[in-house]
Amino acid sequence: MRKRIVRAFAPATIANLGPGFDVLGLAIDRPGDFVTAARQLDPSLTFSVRGKERTVPSDARKNVASFVAQLMLDEFKPPFGIQLVLDKRMPIGSGLGSSAASSVAAAAAVNALLPKPLKRHELLRFAIEGERLASGAMHADNVAPSLLGGACLVRSYDPLEVVRIPVRNTIFWVVVHPHMEVRTEEARNILPTSVPLEKAIHHWGNVAGLTIGLSTGDAALVGRCVADEIVEPVRSSLIPGFHDVKKAALAAGATGCSISGSGPSLFAVAPSRSAAKKIGAAMKRQFATSSRVACDVYLSRVNMEGTRVGWRQ
Amino acid sequence: MRKRIVRAFAPATIANLGPGFDVLGLAIDRPGDFVTAARQLDPSLTFSVRGKERTVPSDARKNVASFVAQLMLDEFKPPFGIQLVLDKRMPIGSGLGSSAASSVAAAAAVNALLPKPLKRHELLRFAIEGERLASGAMHADNVAPSLLGGACLVRSYDPLEVVRIPVRNTIFWVVVHPHMEVRTEEARNILPTSVPLEKAIHHWGNVAGLTIGLSTGDAALVGRCVADEIVEPVRSSLIPGFHDVKKAALAAGATGCSISGSGPSLFAVAPSRSAAKKIGAAMKRQFATSSRVACDVYLSRVNMEGTRVGWRQ
Repeated sequence: MRKRIVRAFAPATIANLGPGFDVLGLAIDRPGDFVTAARQLDPSLTFSVRGKERTVPSDARKNVASFVAQLMLDEFKPPFGIQLVLDKRMPIGSGLGSSAASSVAAAAAVNALLPKPLKRHELLRFAIEGERLASGAMHADNVAPSLLGGACLVRSYDPLEVVRIPVRNTIFWVVVHPHMEVRTEEARNILPTSVPLEKAIHHWGNVAGLTIGLSTGDAALVGRCVADEIVEPVRSSLIPGFHDVKKAALAAGATGCSISGSGPSLFAVAPSRSAAKKIGAAMKRQFATSSRVACDVYLSRVNMEGTRVGWRQ
Repeated sequence: MRKRIVRAFAPATIANLGPGFDVLGLAIDRPGDFVTAARQLDPSLTFSVRGKERTVPSDARKNVASFVAQLMLDEFKPPFGIQLVLDKRMPIGSGLGSSAASSVAAAAAVNALLPKPLKRHELLRFAIEGERLASGAMHADNVAPSLLGGACLVRSYDPLEVVRIPVRNTIFWVVVHPHMEVRTEEARNILPTSVPLEKAIHHWGNVAGLTIGLSTGDAALVGRCVADEIVEPVRSSLIPGFHDVKKAALAAGATGCSISGSGPSLFAVAPSRSAAKKIGAAMKRQFATSSRVACDVYLSRVNMEGTRVGWRQ
């Protein structure tokens, strides 16, 4: 019997990871977005948004979830329409890959209803189009890990090449989301257009060290390598309290700390769950003291699963 | 009974590996330098050079091998002098870490004679001083793999931090040394002082991919990642025939090809020993055709052992 209603979850992601600007990202367990898709006789797409973060567009042409779903319907022309509901749990402009999670969950949900579902990695090109709608540019460093799970390298866009990074999953990732918004576009416009060779060399040394540390589960090495002298110095100016909170994270036992995606969320690297708890609490306290903003704190190992789909008949 | 005469071998190295400029290097099996050290009653250092590459300085203050040996004698003040003979097999200015191999072999040989020998990684700081003498700057991307074996990341110089890269040793490395010399200093002076951010991003994506490919033994990925848009375009101008030889390597089955160290040697990435043989022959032929220079060709997996010491009583 064919599946008629499916519900897909797609997790939040930490992109950039310090030195891996525009090329590295990893999935965490929480938060994430849900998308429910149901077949309907009417061959069109109907769309609605619920959940606590309803500031996203509900117009089906402007929301990334419905946009991705429509692309897939246009290409695969299934003999039915789809009723799509985005359960939006992730705040937008958080630096946690909110639009990527919506895009991925929509792609996974629609795919599960198709007569001949695609393989998971084949959904990447659709989910990326959602990111393009959201940011005006092609980015896969959130989409790829949210879809595939684990830590991903986006090595190239033309052709698109995503490489899974081997992960020894012992490190805990602390993500702190202060309740303020940074516009990805603004965070991108303030970037330098060129970098001194010396800094670039140091940077790619850190990228290599980060990759090694992920594959060996070396929290100390990964922490040292999330140093970023190119992007963090300019983007941190958009996050009130950044330097105090980073200091608090390191003082509480984090081996490293930087900006998640384009911010304002920060992530910290912890060698154990107990250390992660202490670090998260210290960062939250410091954001309250320094910037008078409340925070959500998430603790997670790398989510190796990526998007997941459940269904009802 | 105490060792009285030791002979140490230190292997050649491929530094930079394309995108890992100044931070990555790996050891190969051949060529390499030998240093023999013998105790003598006279508490001084006596030094001589033999071997086929005798263009190196034979003055003990100017040769890297004797310079490193003298540093160690000065620091550890053993109750004997040392007679040091450098058997110089590696051409200088080859891009294969010639001075690093001499420095490492000298450090390993002298160390083996010491009443309380140091651990191998503790020799790094002495061998690096040899490199400083040779190039005027502190570099460890040849020294570290020649000493420790395997593939190494030099993540930082202050403090010095060398990280071993996990290696699944299935890839074959083809090294072709054309009989011409490139002065490291000149190769360094023509480098750009800054790089466009876009290129830098592409570059650190390749560094990450290279690191992953080494650890998974993925010759195709490693080959794609040895692309280098920053250093190769300027340094290749110092190597007559570079572009033709690279093309010949790729046509013969190499998955990637770039400059070893500061050149003029090239390296190519091969998925098998038989492919490596074909690639090496094609590159040699092309150098003869394009630049009328003869070449030495070396085929090797990663040398995981690094320097090694044998002794006679």
